[in-house]
Amino acid sequence: MSSSLLDQRLAAAARLVEAELERLLADALQPDELDRPQRLLAAMRHAVLAGGKRLRPFLVIESAALFGVAPEKAVAAAAALELVHCYSLVHDDLPAMDDDDLRRGRPTVHRAYDEATAILVGDALQTLAFEVMGGASHDDPAVRAELTVLLARASGLGGMAGGQMLDLAAEGRFDGGAPLVLAEAEIRRLQAMKTGALIRVACLAGAVLGRADAAKRQALVAYGETIGLAFQIADDLIDLEGDAARAGKATGKDAAKGKGTLVSLRGADWARDELTRLVAAAATHLAPFGSAAATLDATARFIAEREV
Amino acid sequence: MSSSLLDQRLAAAARLVEAELERLLADALQPDELDRPQRLLAAMRHAVLAGGKRLRPFLVIESAALFGVAPEKAVAAAAALELVHCYSLVHDDLPAMDDDDLRRGRPTVHRAYDEATAILVGDALQTLAFEVMGGASHDDPAVRAELTVLLARASGLGGMAGGQMLDLAAEGRFDGGAPLVLAEAEIRRLQAMKTGALIRVACLAGAVLGRADAAKRQALVAYGETIGLAFQIADDLIDLEGDAARAGKATGKDAAKGKGTLVSLRGADWARDELTRLVAAAATHLAPFGSAAATLDATARFIAEREV
Repeated sequence: MSSSLLDQRLAAAARLVEAELERLLADALQPDELDRPQRLLAAMRHAVLAGGKRLRPFLVIESAALFGVAPEKAVAAAAALELVHCYSLVHDDLPAMDDDDLRRGRPTVHRAYDEATAILVGDALQTLAFEVMGGASHDDPAVRAELTVLLARASGLGGMAGGQMLDLAAEGRFDGGAPLVLAEAEIRRLQAMKTGALIRVACLAGAVLGRADAAKRQALVAYGETIGLAFQIADDLIDLEGDAARAGKATGKDAAKGKGTLVSLRGADWARDELTRLVAAAATHLAPFGSAAATLDATARFIAEREV
Repeated sequence: MSSSLLDQRLAAAARLVEAELERLLADALQPDELDRPQRLLAAMRHAVLAGGKRLRPFLVIESAALFGVAPEKAVAAAAALELVHCYSLVHDDLPAMDDDDLRRGRPTVHRAYDEATAILVGDALQTLAFEVMGGASHDDPAVRAELTVLLARASGLGGMAGGQMLDLAAEGRFDGGAPLVLAEAEIRRLQAMKTGALIRVACLAGAVLGRADAAKRQALVAYGETIGLAFQIADDLIDLEGDAARAGKATGKDAAKGKGTLVSLRGADWARDELTRLVAAAATHLAPFGSAAATLDATARFIAEREV
């Protein structure tokens, strides 16, 4: 698949998902509410409706498409994943966490509003994600309940939140310690939790929506794990070599924090070779789907080669 | 029902729920995890396994019992509600929010650990709540999915988180403003969201677990709304007149913040009369259940008369 065709599919999915997110956040308050929670709603909209690649929802939609599920039937689950991603960004940016002022070139929520509002924005976005996953992600409540559990497992102590905790520990944030020197296996584990788990579950969610058999579920899980790792290595390369204006966020942060990444451990040349290897591995995992998986195959290359 | 018999039932439910919470938090990490997320798990345990009345889980268990549901069949849903309650306390206590050092006579999570850990504790406890509700609250996935949505609606923008936002606004926390003077209807709306929604859904959850008909669901919703209001008025009375050592938390905070409550607006005598009226109203809502509802009837009195 050409990169321009992939761009078109990415843009179409992003439009669909953003319309769904817009609808969820417009409908969230009834007109007879008090005026004051409007501040919370406005800040939630600031956090969610700020553009971005919408990669995780795209993976849900494209994985589901392998099983003949129309994008309109996958968009609620896709939006739920994006809400979890957005909540995590709001909380990760907080002063007590990564203390970031910019996100996608705009002020972070606690800079545009305040810390208390940003904490509540993250909380309420996580809640909304589970409301959508439990209530609207599929006609069959058994599928909705399964997706709810899968999303929770990818997000909590054993997934994204646990990974963020490991990341803060690796930066030496607790007990007044210096940054920890992590072994490669520990860095990989951290990545699999912090950024990998949500990408993995995005691909798996498509299989669940499509009522895929165990082999095809497993193929999409393996694909998701592979591109999740590629995503993180590309992210670390951007942080090492990238331009802040282009990336829309500060770069050079890992080195400034003394934080070990696979790229700092193995070097940029190794990282570029590894990305090539991961793109090939992703294609292998997609083989059972034949030409129907051309978009996901192109997505793996897109993730490995991205510069923002 | 005598108050000592109610105490026994409260204690029995608390033991059951605490065993469930202990199990959930012990099982949450596999032994081969890295050491570092253990800090997050330990902080989650600090937040959850700190005693307390376990009122919300008790309401789930006792409401479900009206329909012949055994406590063991209601305890997962009960634990999920308690996890949401505990997450909200951890985040409400943060320096950017209410800035509390003590909770139930022990250091709050951000005092015992640090702010970043406390933010992640709240996040991961919310996630765990939805994992439990979506995955283990009932044999029937349709019930699990319904309970997931009900819990989310009680917790998010239109419920607990939205209510906390209103509460911060009422304290004049945004735009450098003075405390807002709220009308009685606005105070009632704030209470219904911040503390009422979760108490209401605890009672409704029992009806959903028991597959109650619409009339009995509605009766339990009305009961839940009534005792939720009584809970808040009793809480405001404790803050106005109570002793910090006995309450296990700081008192006099509402007045110090210039925060309007129903009690500050109408006076302590009105509040005590109103509590008597609410206890009678709760009994009316329970009438369809006859003597089976003796425990819930006694619970309404317990809530209205509590001093801690």
